[in-house]
Amino acid sequence: MSDEVTVFAPASVGNVAVGFDSLGLALEAPGDRVTARRVDEPGVRLERVTGDQGRLPRATGENSASVAARAVVARLGGSAGLVLTLDKGLPLASGLGSSGASAVAGAVAADRVLGTCLAPEALLACAMEGERAACGSAHADNVAPSLLGGLVLVRGQLGPGPPEAIRLPVPAGLTVAVARPHLEILTGESRSILPRTVPLDRAVAWSADLAALVVALFRSDLALVGRSIVDRVAEPVRLPRIRGGAAAVNAAREAGALAASLSGSGPSLFALCADRDTARRVVRAMTSALHRNGVESDHYLSTADAPGARVVEPRSGTDSTRGG
Amino acid sequence: MSDEVTVFAPASVGNVAVGFDSLGLALEAPGDRVTARRVDEPGVRLERVTGDQGRLPRATGENSASVAARAVVARLGGSAGLVLTLDKGLPLASGLGSSGASAVAGAVAADRVLGTCLAPEALLACAMEGERAACGSAHADNVAPSLLGGLVLVRGQLGPGPPEAIRLPVPAGLTVAVARPHLEILTGESRSILPRTVPLDRAVAWSADLAALVVALFRSDLALVGRSIVDRVAEPVRLPRIRGGAAAVNAAREAGALAASLSGSGPSLFALCADRDTARRVVRAMTSALHRNGVESDHYLSTADAPGARVVEPRSGTDSTRGG
Repeated sequence: MSDEVTVFAPASVGNVAVGFDSLGLALEAPGDRVTARRVDEPGVRLERVTGDQGRLPRATGENSASVAARAVVARLGGSAGLVLTLDKGLPLASGLGSSGASAVAGAVAADRVLGTCLAPEALLACAMEGERAACGSAHADNVAPSLLGGLVLVRGQLGPGPPEAIRLPVPAGLTVAVARPHLEILTGESRSILPRTVPLDRAVAWSADLAALVVALFRSDLALVGRSIVDRVAEPVRLPRIRGGAAAVNAAREAGALAASLSGSGPSLFALCADRDTARRVVRAMTSALHRNGVESDHYLSTADAPGARVVEPRSGTDSTRGG
Repeated sequence: MSDEVTVFAPASVGNVAVGFDSLGLALEAPGDRVTARRVDEPGVRLERVTGDQGRLPRATGENSASVAARAVVARLGGSAGLVLTLDKGLPLASGLGSSGASAVAGAVAADRVLGTCLAPEALLACAMEGERAACGSAHADNVAPSLLGGLVLVRGQLGPGPPEAIRLPVPAGLTVAVARPHLEILTGESRSILPRTVPLDRAVAWSADLAALVVALFRSDLALVGRSIVDRVAEPVRLPRIRGGAAAVNAAREAGALAASLSGSGPSLFALCADRDTARRVVRAMTSALHRNGVESDHYLSTADAPGARVVEPRSGTDSTRGG
């Protein structure tokens, strides 16, 4: 056990269109890093934040990384002392689970440097406390994949028990393309425009589509993956607010994506593709469509089965929080 | 090919609590029988209905069996002549998919006697026309399992394409216990008390639970089957209207059921159990609880993987509409 560990936690695509607030997938990159160092003085202290151009809160009780690390220490009785640094590799307010990645990196770094090896459910709960500090409300569709990797379904978020994260099977080759327009959307604002209720027949269709997606994943039925990824809730109100967004989503579909929509609350857009070659073509089509609408963007390609948070310093071949 | 065939279509449990309007399962029994006889005179005619104490409509255009058979003939150009008889084995207005079973039996009988062997999707669409004639609205959560057998998820009921029925894997031994109180509930009335919209957070939890149930079925994870079968929509408003209903559902859970709730719109109640022995114990607990509340009942036990509609006359070892 080292006195200092650095943990990488990846970006994630929340919602995945059909799993509003309950489904998300991890990306290979980008991601955030949190370094945790044990010190004699009790308590958790956030020492430094880099890569955010000074925009994130520095107060230990307000930054999602340190709030999550504090939650880990609190579970252990609260007497340990930790100093944290957060290196933001993720763009803020991009719809790629930035606060969630920081929270996960903070929780896992604290857990690893203290050698406690909390269960994934406990780490998830701690990371959600960080997410709540950053966003006001905590949904697990970003923190769960950032923690566990892969494509993750979260049930039980209304209780009575703790939320339950379930890794779903991912068909071989399934690749996610992400275009990130150089626009910013605040999650809170983006949430306020959502309908508060869903018509019953639409909720029926939504739940059946999410269930059908699970069938499609277990059976590696890519056509059904495509048919079942439909967003009946957020996309209709959120996509029109992103300049070039609808054009990019249409371009992705025309270029062969199985499905395309907003990543989280946007402005990033994701597309699921049968293989990496298609994903390359799709992401070019998306960025071109954005460009034609006067919006510059960058992009990421990732397997849909990317690993979750892990210790990157000190190096080890085995550490992983990948769960069942 | 015979000039006359008789088809049996089984009762079904609609909704299965967590899959409102999209999930259902077939029972081994009871069920309805439709006999279709080819005649020279074009058109479909409903000649006789038995077992319903004279309560179902006799007009060919109003009975779900003959409406569904007509839909089959219409698909073939409409020149065939058929005379039908319907033997109701299913109690009416019991929440066991009575009109759906008649519709399925009518559609399959017409298809088989004409030797057309329509695809399951086409038969489903025809049966849904029968269901619509009987109920005013058509949902596939009864007709799909009655047609295909087993536990069936239906997606795409809001379009744009036709509804898609997906048979789910059923863990070995999974058994359904049904208690049918001697009370009647009209589906239309029972539907009017449902909320027209669902709060967003509840729709999130609902969709995640239905998706988690699919995971549980693929993994034969019976504990997760139990946790994920939660009704956040219909049970809260429908169960209190059934005398002894809440007591019976609680008794089922205490007797070891994985889950228990209303079958369709009730008054029948179902419980899913890990094996047949448990199901026997559970159904006794349910009927006793109803009895203590002054409600008599009868009951059924069935594998959760019961076969769907099939030709019973002329006898053949092979006919089945079981689909993928």
